[in-house]
Amino acid sequence: MTRFALTLEFDGTPFSGLQRQENAPSVQQAVEEAASAITGEDVTMFSAGRTDAGVHALAMRSHIEIAKEMTPFRLMEALNAHLRPQPIAVTHCEAVADDWHARFSCIGRSYVYRIINRRAPLTFDKNRAWQVPQPLDETAMHDAAQALVGLHDFTTFRSVQCQSQSPVKTLDLLTVEREGEEVRVHAAARSFLHHQVRSMVGCLALVGMGRWDRQRLEEALEARDRQELGLNAPPHGLYFVAAQYPDET
Amino acid sequence: MTRFALTLEFDGTPFSGLQRQENAPSVQQAVEEAASAITGEDVTMFSAGRTDAGVHALAMRSHIEIAKEMTPFRLMEALNAHLRPQPIAVTHCEAVADDWHARFSCIGRSYVYRIINRRAPLTFDKNRAWQVPQPLDETAMHDAAQALVGLHDFTTFRSVQCQSQSPVKTLDLLTVEREGEEVRVHAAARSFLHHQVRSMVGCLALVGMGRWDRQRLEEALEARDRQELGLNAPPHGLYFVAAQYPDET
Repeated sequence: MTRFALTLEFDGTPFSGLQRQENAPSVQQAVEEAASAITGEDVTMFSAGRTDAGVHALAMRSHIEIAKEMTPFRLMEALNAHLRPQPIAVTHCEAVADDWHARFSCIGRSYVYRIINRRAPLTFDKNRAWQVPQPLDETAMHDAAQALVGLHDFTTFRSVQCQSQSPVKTLDLLTVEREGEEVRVHAAARSFLHHQVRSMVGCLALVGMGRWDRQRLEEALEARDRQELGLNAPPHGLYFVAAQYPDET
Repeated sequence: MTRFALTLEFDGTPFSGLQRQENAPSVQQAVEEAASAITGEDVTMFSAGRTDAGVHALAMRSHIEIAKEMTPFRLMEALNAHLRPQPIAVTHCEAVADDWHARFSCIGRSYVYRIINRRAPLTFDKNRAWQVPQPLDETAMHDAAQALVGLHDFTTFRSVQCQSQSPVKTLDLLTVEREGEEVRVHAAARSFLHHQVRSMVGCLALVGMGRWDRQRLEEALEARDRQELGLNAPPHGLYFVAAQYPDET
């Protein structure tokens, strides 16, 4: 058996999420079925993140194991051929050691959340960003975001379905920047709770609208109470952008 | 009657083009029907460019005239409401003088052509860019492009259906730049021939692949013969990005 690391780019719109589910299309099922069609083997895929329905990925990191002898290039080409016309592309493929695990070896994950801040409806970015018509103050958002960076109990920003053993996480980075009508929130951590990025972005948007201030955000964090969450941002603005592994620069 | 200048953003994928056609959906028909639904009037729209099927616009400039009294803001909001869920958005609307004409007052048009230069199939950019799997040398493309800048007879780069009186045009700018896997061609002129940008981009792609060089491109230009065209790039990579008018900065 050879283990292959895959880098996946996908538009999450038509999928119920990355992870395989009964009776609903998933990215995992699509890639596993492509790999099975190529090899005739039962193939299971593991991934760095478990993105929700509608969430996108620019560079999800995953792995599969296959017995059939193939070069990484041929495997990538065959997977891409079988994945058409689904909006999933394998952008990189390489053979890795048997103890390299896309999920358990991962030591860092980063996301970007895209907000289009304008009144006009979205055209190109429909299902690809969250449209917020009220003017957003990105400087206030960035300042308030710094209150969430570091080691905290993120219970307020955690889905009730979250399966993580602990709500205590270290958030390494949370920045807000504007480029024209687009406001981007960047988040990085070793790992995130379920809905954590969307919950943080939702509350930062309230700050940007002037409905919350930094102090209100700090109170919500300290309350450790999901009821104190102001707003959960919709999934379609969220992109998994990178995963880090030891010995990668 | 009040004349309103509109700025339109649209994804050209579902349309047969900007201009109204029989038995095929067009951007013009969509906006005219929205304006008629709002006002109860017959409305005709004029635009700076006449983009083909599948060609996109980030900021097409157009105008309509209506008798009903409305502020530009209310007209824009109403048009956007009626245009949903079609991928057309009115991003700006203002009242203009009766002699301001979106097409005939326009003194400059610019386009960008997006190439995604990679082997993996497109996901987010499907129908939004031209995928070229062979490595492209953007420096050679940019150098060759300079041979087309200036006053020339562009017959080689003109569709046989072109209705322009003369094939002689002045090309003000043609640049090629790369950002990661994306190669962008920027073109600006007072006006363009039908298919001119796509025809220039197709031949520049041949240069980028190493199949043509600058001299071959110059020979094609000097031949003034459509048969000498190397390649016409597909429509879905092309975006109308801006139109200039007198007294606008």
